[in-house]
Amino acid sequence: MDTSLINPFLTATIHVLATMARIKPVPGKPFLKKNMLALGDVSAIIGITGAARGSMALTFSESTIKAITGNLLGIEATEINDELRDAVGELTNMICGDARRRLSEAGISLQAGIPTIVSGKNHSISHINNGPHLAIPFETPHGGFVVEVAFNKK
Amino acid sequence: MDTSLINPFLTATIHVLATMARIKPVPGKPFLKKNMLALGDVSAIIGITGAARGSMALTFSESTIKAITGNLLGIEATEINDELRDAVGELTNMICGDARRRLSEAGISLQAGIPTIVSGKNHSISHINNGPHLAIPFETPHGGFVVEVAFNKK
Repeated sequence: MDTSLINPFLTATIHVLATMARIKPVPGKPFLKKNMLALGDVSAIIGITGAARGSMALTFSESTIKAITGNLLGIEATEINDELRDAVGELTNMICGDARRRLSEAGISLQAGIPTIVSGKNHSISHINNGPHLAIPFETPHGGFVVEVAFNKK
Repeated sequence: MDTSLINPFLTATIHVLATMARIKPVPGKPFLKKNMLALGDVSAIIGITGAARGSMALTFSESTIKAITGNLLGIEATEINDELRDAVGELTNMICGDARRRLSEAGISLQAGIPTIVSGKNHSISHINNGPHLAIPFETPHGGFVVEVAFNKK
């Protein structure tokens, strides 16, 4: 599989969380199969166009996203409210922007839509695409999250 | 509010559901407020770039999406499985494509990412944007759904 489009999103996720939220996530084993859907409580999705059409999704457990946004905002999130959703949106813009900058340096120009935030206990995300699709689970001291990146074939 | 970007998505939703799934949805009263989140069981989200950066989301109750995909596929969906998710993805591509064609005729060129499908009882969707954002509830004989379109300011 051609992971040249996907790897910068993983690098960007680790970089942004470490620098902005002071949380160093540890990547686990990637999974590919369509019927292994990641379950989470808060997700952020952003559409991608340009040199490739695709989508990035970050799916967090409630405890993980509360810890991340707590560090970002400097206050403790007690519930999933608009402030937390806005913080997740900003985080998503930062990760996607960082990944696009890395790809741009390799001559690949991508554009991004606006982040859409999903909240709801134990939801799952799937991407409707015909090209590379990778899901990577990450662990943090506060719980897990999954990064998914999917692109259509050229 | 400038609804010139948003209206074509509503027209496209009604047109595609009527022609492809033989279901004529009846629009209700739009709502704008951020704290009135639509709750649904299956959502489709697609990112938009080009002349404007945004996102479209369709949020369905389980009974509504089973009826729609049942008509689309000609078989009865008994559960939310990969076949149903693929059908929702195709429906989303068709609606977004129809809206983009309508906007293109008005001189506005938009690109779209790939559809991302969310499944999970009673989840909600919110958009992180600073421009026009509209949610329109629709009724069908099989239940309701909500179309949301959000764009950033230029």
